[in-house]
Amino acid sequence: MAVSTETVSDICTAAKRASRALAQLDTQTKDSALQAIAEALEDRVADILEANALDLEAGREAELSGALLDRLALDPRRVAAIAAGVRAIAALSDPVGEVVDGFRRPNGLEIRKVRVPLGVVAVVYEARPNVTIDAAALCLKSGNATVLRGSSSAGHSNALLAQLAGEAAEAAGLPEAAISIIRGGEREELRELATQTGTVDLLIPRGGEQLKSALAEHATVPVIYAASGNCHVYVDASADLDLAQRIVVNAKVQRPGVCNAAETLLVHRDVAAAFLPQVARALVESGVELRGDKRAYELAGQFPIEPASPADWDTEYLSLILAVAVVDSLDGAIEHIAAHGTGHSEAIVTSDRDAARRFQHAVDAACVYVNASTRFTDGGEFGMGAEIGNSTQKLHARGPIGLRELCTFKYLIEGDGQVRS
Amino acid sequence: MAVSTETVSDICTAAKRASRALAQLDTQTKDSALQAIAEALEDRVADILEANALDLEAGREAELSGALLDRLALDPRRVAAIAAGVRAIAALSDPVGEVVDGFRRPNGLEIRKVRVPLGVVAVVYEARPNVTIDAAALCLKSGNATVLRGSSSAGHSNALLAQLAGEAAEAAGLPEAAISIIRGGEREELRELATQTGTVDLLIPRGGEQLKSALAEHATVPVIYAASGNCHVYVDASADLDLAQRIVVNAKVQRPGVCNAAETLLVHRDVAAAFLPQVARALVESGVELRGDKRAYELAGQFPIEPASPADWDTEYLSLILAVAVVDSLDGAIEHIAAHGTGHSEAIVTSDRDAARRFQHAVDAACVYVNASTRFTDGGEFGMGAEIGNSTQKLHARGPIGLRELCTFKYLIEGDGQVRS
Repeated sequence: MAVSTETVSDICTAAKRASRALAQLDTQTKDSALQAIAEALEDRVADILEANALDLEAGREAELSGALLDRLALDPRRVAAIAAGVRAIAALSDPVGEVVDGFRRPNGLEIRKVRVPLGVVAVVYEARPNVTIDAAALCLKSGNATVLRGSSSAGHSNALLAQLAGEAAEAAGLPEAAISIIRGGEREELRELATQTGTVDLLIPRGGEQLKSALAEHATVPVIYAASGNCHVYVDASADLDLAQRIVVNAKVQRPGVCNAAETLLVHRDVAAAFLPQVARALVESGVELRGDKRAYELAGQFPIEPASPADWDTEYLSLILAVAVVDSLDGAIEHIAAHGTGHSEAIVTSDRDAARRFQHAVDAACVYVNASTRFTDGGEFGMGAEIGNSTQKLHARGPIGLRELCTFKYLIEGDGQVRS
Repeated sequence: MAVSTETVSDICTAAKRASRALAQLDTQTKDSALQAIAEALEDRVADILEANALDLEAGREAELSGALLDRLALDPRRVAAIAAGVRAIAALSDPVGEVVDGFRRPNGLEIRKVRVPLGVVAVVYEARPNVTIDAAALCLKSGNATVLRGSSSAGHSNALLAQLAGEAAEAAGLPEAAISIIRGGEREELRELATQTGTVDLLIPRGGEQLKSALAEHATVPVIYAASGNCHVYVDASADLDLAQRIVVNAKVQRPGVCNAAETLLVHRDVAAAFLPQVARALVESGVELRGDKRAYELAGQFPIEPASPADWDTEYLSLILAVAVVDSLDGAIEHIAAHGTGHSEAIVTSDRDAARRFQHAVDAACVYVNASTRFTDGGEFGMGAEIGNSTQKLHARGPIGLRELCTFKYLIEGDGQVRS
């Protein structure tokens, strides 16, 4: 494992060299390394908790909030869950070597488009030390070398976790620089990492808007930004209103702090009078604060609803607040989403086949749902097994970023002397 | 069609609006528009040549080189070829709507991953006016709105071609802003175009290194840089030497000015004494200048060969010059390519199955050939029908950029009330 005396450039160069060997490993070797990492985590729980205690102590001295301290904290149960996550990744099928496409040309050339690792994947993240292992395991399974950079608040925990994982992987036959961690200051190393053109093949930031904008300013390496999600549920004129209520409440309430939770409810005017009092009751009973446009405000019945300001339509609350608007038509809903959506997850509730079809065609988002909660946008729920984030970009990865999205491909072409005329 | 009084931002905003309608067009409508464009080009040859004559006159006054003037010049045959290219694109199968993947989850959710247009594709190019139509036609077929920016030296030609294409498409029922062109100065508009975040979904530069570095400095929108290709042919110890010679000569000589032409020949030491005099004769007879390392120099026999300098191994000559090195082993060839290749197209000539396999696994490039010329890296040769360039990036598109690579995808998810627990 790379140690802290190396420069960022040294670490990335070593990772690049390691990536060439990693790309050619068979699945069995990679899975053995993952099993060894899981065992190392279990064997060394006491040491991990000791390192974590140092971070927690420093965090309390720095007067971090209770929520931040909780994200930082490890306990035996959490370490066991991290190890179980590694074993789950080992059990996934290997994306490397999958033939994505293949054909024979009239001149006899045989062409296969084959999935291969990207090379070096850098992951920049905040607080939660479990990301150290999750990211390393996903990258290892997909044949990539990983360069990790956590936040200094979790420095002791991250360093030990990366060290244990790197040593376990090395003992299982992987190159030393398969898993590296960058330690040190907050901003300078980040900028250096984001400009390692030629060695870093992909940088994935997992963190808040501040981290993303710091990167956007300096990055010259390819970056996939994890998504922010201003997700909508549109209840169509033909919707089954009980089913609509179940979906709206789930999309808002089940886990409001995540990017695939709904932030705005759109209701067709023909069902607004019937639906709004019913759904408002259910939402308010679940602790949701409602902010409505004029028509929603008038129709919500006896339930408390605040008037929405223009900013509400563009706000990702990530909490128990829901904006509510009444629209005149399916097209009105589509227009609202085009104007305010972030291209993450959008849902229609409808019994009308044509409305479902038109909504799915017209809405430009990674995931477009009919009669289901937006909360399903997730690598696990999509059957990818695990994800390193969600992309709202359109190039390369859109939606959950799983093992396949951590790969590129190459064309393998075989002939018997073909030349071009 | 957008006119020159609009700002770059106006043009891109209108293109974005148009792209929403374009994304939903059926194949028939798009193909009719392409046929109408081809007809318009044929009907208006005289006007096109008149506009082109203005550019040529200005070019001669500005003392452009003969090669540049030739790239700029249109004649009836070239216009007919452009129209035929448009009809060929119309005949390709539509990438939009292709189901890339699909499955049913245990909870009954049905998920399809469906190919959809990117939205707005901006293409920046130099000299050749045919790119105006090629790029617009590829973008139209793949359901994207196009924003074009040619060089001012072809300003009259490009403006008229874009106008004819835009009018023909509009008459066929497409939105007005499906095809737009930016006119005006050289640098300011380019910078503006490269920073239209939120409207430009992809920018593709087709031009020299100067254009690419100008973009790399300022671009905030996604860019796929067309490749430079430092391509190698490696002749293994087990190669059929006649077949090797045919491939080497073809890869170097058939069209030396393109990115998939070979720039370096690597020869295994065991066959160097037999192969080098033979291939040197054939290359020199084809007008190729050779630059060899010490061993190649000594083994080339009576044929003239210059000593290679270290810079030669990293030079994309794009002309009738070939660097030649003798390597000790397959691994030596792989190392040389890892150190000097640009990840474009690499070839091995061998009769040894294991060597072929190891070369294809170990070489990190878009296209890795066994016993065939590197010159086949091309959308047409790969059966994609046409290409807008070649990518040596690893994200999104690698290798030829055809219609599919001008698309993204979205997940369409259908349920009957599924919520997440």
